[in-house]
Formats: sequence, structure tokens, C-alpha cells
Amino acid sequence: MAQTPSRLDILSQEPYNAETVLAEHTGVITPTSAFYKRNHFPIPHLDPSTWMLTVDGEVEHSLALSYDEILSLPRRTLSATLECAGNARVSFDPPAQGEPWKYGAVSTAEWTGTPLAGVLSAAGLRDGVWEIIFEGADRGAVADRDGPIAFERSLPLERALHPDTLLVYAMNGERLSPEHGAPIRLIVPGWYGMASVKWLAHIRASSEAFRGFFQWDRYMMVDPADESRREPLAMIRVRSIFTEPVDGSSLSRGRHHLRGLAWSGSAPVERVDISTDAGESWLPAYFTSRAQPYAWRHWEYSWEPDTTGPYTLQSRATDVHGDTQPVQANWNRLGYANNAIVAVDVTVV
Amino acid sequence: MAQTPSRLDILSQEPYNAETVLAEHTGVITPTSAFYKRNHFPIPHLDPSTWMLTVDGEVEHSLALSYDEILSLPRRTLSATLECAGNARVSFDPPAQGEPWKYGAVSTAEWTGTPLAGVLSAAGLRDGVWEIIFEGADRGAVADRDGPIAFERSLPLERALHPDTLLVYAMNGERLSPEHGAPIRLIVPGWYGMASVKWLAHIRASSEAFRGFFQWDRYMMVDPADESRREPLAMIRVRSIFTEPVDGSSLSRGRHHLRGLAWSGSAPVERVDISTDAGESWLPAYFTSRAQPYAWRHWEYSWEPDTTGPYTLQSRATDVHGDTQPVQANWNRLGYANNAIVAVDVTVV
Repeated sequence: MAQTPSRLDILSQEPYNAETVLAEHTGVITPTSAFYKRNHFPIPHLDPSTWMLTVDGEVEHSLALSYDEILSLPRRTLSATLECAGNARVSFDPPAQGEPWKYGAVSTAEWTGTPLAGVLSAAGLRDGVWEIIFEGADRGAVADRDGPIAFERSLPLERALHPDTLLVYAMNGERLSPEHGAPIRLIVPGWYGMASVKWLAHIRASSEAFRGFFQWDRYMMVDPADESRREPLAMIRVRSIFTEPVDGSSLSRGRHHLRGLAWSGSAPVERVDISTDAGESWLPAYFTSRAQPYAWRHWEYSWEPDTTGPYTLQSRATDVHGDTQPVQANWNRLGYANNAIVAVDVTVV
Repeated sequence: MAQTPSRLDILSQEPYNAETVLAEHTGVITPTSAFYKRNHFPIPHLDPSTWMLTVDGEVEHSLALSYDEILSLPRRTLSATLECAGNARVSFDPPAQGEPWKYGAVSTAEWTGTPLAGVLSAAGLRDGVWEIIFEGADRGAVADRDGPIAFERSLPLERALHPDTLLVYAMNGERLSPEHGAPIRLIVPGWYGMASVKWLAHIRASSEAFRGFFQWDRYMMVDPADESRREPLAMIRVRSIFTEPVDGSSLSRGRHHLRGLAWSGSAPVERVDISTDAGESWLPAYFTSRAQPYAWRHWEYSWEPDTTGPYTLQSRATDVHGDTQPVQANWNRLGYANNAIVAVDVTVV
């Protein structure tokens, strides 16, 4: 339970990176003050009364939209879990490059905005458009590139036109805060967080594949056996975690409710199985919140250990596509998309 | 949009009664600080470390549950709209008795708690139990009764045993606040707010129909033609309202997105129809948030008026049971359950 709802587990101050303390939150919605934060550069503070969103490139009509114009467009509200592609990086062995996220670089919020497709339609996409490129107002220096650069990402056209891809101005029923991308951010439900560009400044339609730093040098799964084989990160992989008990804890004998969360970007989670014998046998947990297209679910498992001693607890989620979690992490140099089954060791006394 | 998310429209300070300013919130979830508040008595401030919930009456085993014991029980999270039974009372003509609520005594939150049924099962209900009675820790004087009384309500057994009837400790992902019933409140999804007893102190199983003040003298639909005919309030009636534009506003010519909310306690809202000609003709709005069992939905309607001049805008919701809103309010002396169609007058200039 949230004694101090704004408590975060801070990785770095500049740029500001901080995890959600998942065990402290019992709801589907993560309170905004407790939502994880992942930044590449200092947070821009933009004035919505002067800010404009430029839409140009391979379009019939370039647009410059004000904040109020975006508010007047058709509206859509949905809940979505955002997860940093580097979540659980600390569990790779050998260690991978990058911020040492444990398991808390993931949170869920309700987002309200306007479908991007309407804005692209108003601009009029030309034949041959292949990708839509999104530039944030955040800038800074990166390895191997000259001078400060902006955070830029692209989406394939079909994902940009998906009705759930939104230009967002509200989070959990309140106006978006600067920390989460005000005045307007992109939300790409089901995708790892890097796709949901914050502090949007510029949208560009392009007939070519984008090769920006955060598209090509980062957020890329590099095959350790052949570094020329690279797959860009997109959908959040299926995963489950324990929120209770925590690793290393002692439990009394008697009945316990093991608890946790499960999610998958491409499809709702259909089942979570629990092992209390280090993976020998598995039994299904039950869900304590509803299935939604893009949001995690809480699960619970009633357990009464037979004897005192050490136990290894594991959870394994499966989504409606049949995708499930691997036993071994899929090691990659940049440490992305580690959705391996987690072991929680406890002692019953 | 929420410029000041905690702004409420205050009806009275003691007891504290305040409406949500619905037009300021774009999400499904109402931020906790902006959630409407309806109290009968001063707000109790209870210490969860010493508070106990008593369960007794016609049970096999009386229980005294601590806050931590309730947290350890099976968990459930759901979103539900709560509406005061007196919402829209101010629109009755002739005026009805009671707090003059406009349309903002309604809000939506995500609630987390444990199903009441599990606690009743642990206590062991005896044969012949007819109702479960809930007593809050809030007390005060009321008309026509001696001395201070507690806020007490009962539920029919089948509703008390419904798996979505919860003993709640978290709201919108955060620990429940004293203003909303901490440490533990009842939530009866789909029912008018009076059923969701705050500051729970005592649960009693009874083999008789409860006749307490807030069960029998209030929250009762009294037939104006025959005052002996009385129907207790239960499920929230189907209703829709406009959030944009506000009554009396001037609109420019051109395209506008009319917007609002729609809800029904007994079944999800299936359609909302809009009239821009004072009820002569109706066309469907579209929904901009998902259907959920107990939560309201946002709707939107794209409108381009033909000519300048005055227009009367109306919305009419229909739920999946086919229940819809009446043209004329169903007048009753205590002013409850006014779900009549609302007219919003605007001028196109």
C-alpha cells in the first residue's frame, strides 16, 4: 500500500531516471507521482500558450497546430502500460550496457488525447510515405554523434495511423505534467516506452526509413552471434512479476496470497502460472483486475506451504497469442527486452 | 481541461458537500482531489493501527478484523462511477427537499479492496439472514429522531454477496483518504452512492428488514400520488449529460465537437443520441472511451450548424437493457433519481 505515493527508486538525477516501487501500489492505475520516469536529456518546460506542433515533410499541407486546436479535435481515452525497453536490464548475466533498471521501469496510466491519424489526415499524406518521424523538444549530447541532438523516433505508417496512437494531453484525468511530456506527447499503446515521444515539437512524414540515433544506434536488439543482425524494438514482450512476497523474505506457515502483475503489449494476458518448487510444477493464478487491451492485470495465488524451509517462487505469463516468458533471458549487448521468468527466494519458518 | 484539478463546486461546509466540475475533466477516472463529496455528518479521522471492523449479528463466529488483516485478504480492483441519488435535484420543478445538487454529484474512480463475500463467509451466515447492515463511524443529529445517530445502511443478501461488492482501501491507486472513507469503506458498484458506506465500523447480519433513518426515512422514492407507496433507491438510473458546450454559450459557425458523459448502474450504456433541434430528430453520438461494467463513458458528436441563431441541444442515453432517459423528470418529494433529458441552450453567431 502506498504510504508515500510519490516515493520513487531513483537511478540518476541528470537526466532524471527513476523506477516505480511496484509493491506499494495496489491499483491498475499508477498514481502520476509514482509513475516511472525515463529521460535522455533535461526536461523541457514548454509554455502551452506559445508552443506549436509542426506537421510537415511528405504532406499536401504543412500544419502548425496550437495546443487549443489539438484540444478541439476528436478525443479518445484509454489505459495503457508503458514499459522501458531496458526494464530488468540489471538481471542480465553478463551485465549489459545501459541504465541498471531493476523491475520498476513500468507503470500504467489512463491517457486522453486525439488520434494522430486525424492530424495526419488533415495534413494529407503523399503517396509513398513510409514512416512518420516524431521529434521531442528535449536535446543533449550522445555518444558517437556530434553536437546536441533531439530525441527523435519514427513509427511505421500503419502504427501511426492506428486509432489508438494518440497525441496526449491528459494523464489519469489531469492535465499532462512537464515530467511526463507536456504540453503534448505521443502515446503508442503496446509499444515499449521509447516510442511514446514526450514534449512533441515536430511530426514529419517521410518516404525513407529513419536512421536517427535513438532509432538505429539504440533501442535495437543486436544479435550477439552476428552484430549485423538487428531488430528494432516495438511491442512490449509478455512478462509477469511478483509484488508480494519480496525476494529474500521470511514467511510464517499458514496461507499466503502471492501477488503480482502481468502484461504484454501485443495482446491481453490470458493466464499466469505459478511454481513454488523452482519450476518443477505449475498451477494457475487468478486475476483480480479485468483484461484490457493495453494495460497490465493483477494476479493472485493462494499458497499454503507444506513444510518449513526454502522455496523458490516463479510466475509465468501467457498472452492470448500464446506468447510466454522464456526461462533464460535473451542476452543482447544493449540489454533490452529481458522478459525471462523471475525467481523469488523465500524461507518459510 | 483541469487547470486546477482540485477545484470543486461547494454546496455546504458542514457537513462538507461539493460537486465535481465535470467540464474540467477529460478522463474516465476523476482525479481524487476533484471527486465529488457528499457527507451527512462531520468527517471522522480514524487511525488504521487501532481501528477494527466488527462483524456480528446472525453469524456463526463474530469477527473483529484489523486493517492489516483486511489487506491480507484476496484483492479485487475495478472502476465504478458513484452518483449521489440527489444529483440534478435542482432541476425538479416544483423544487424538491434536500441539498440543491446540480449535475456534478457524480464521479468515477478505480477502487481496490477485498470482496465482502469472503468476510461474510469467514463469519458464517446463519440460515434466515435477509440483509447485511453497514454502520459508518460518522454520527450526528437528524430530523425527527432523538440524539445523534450513525450513518447506517443495509444491502439485500444477494447484493452483499456479489463478488464486486468490496471492502475498499485504495482509490485511484492510492491509499483511501479520510475524505473518502478511510481506512475502509464499502463500494457497491452500480448503486447510488448512499449504499457505499464510508468509515466502516460495524457489519451486522440480520434476519429482518432494516428500518434505520437513512434506509427508511431517506433514499426512498415516495410516490407523490400515494405516499404509502415507497421504493428504496438502488441501481443508478441511466443518464447522460453535456460537458461541452455549457448552457447559455455562444458558438461560432463551423464544426464543433459536442461532448459529454453517459452512465447507467445496471448495465453498460450502449448508445447516446443527440438532438440539436429541441428533440425533433435524433442522431447517434460515438463513444471515445471503452465500455466497462460500472463506469461512465465519454461520448462525442460532430456538429456543424446550418445557420446562426438559437439551438436547443439534448442527449439521451440508452443502456444494454434498453432503459433510456425520460423527457419529464419523475418528480418525488425528496428529489431523488432525476435522470430526465437535459436541454442545453446555445446561440450560433
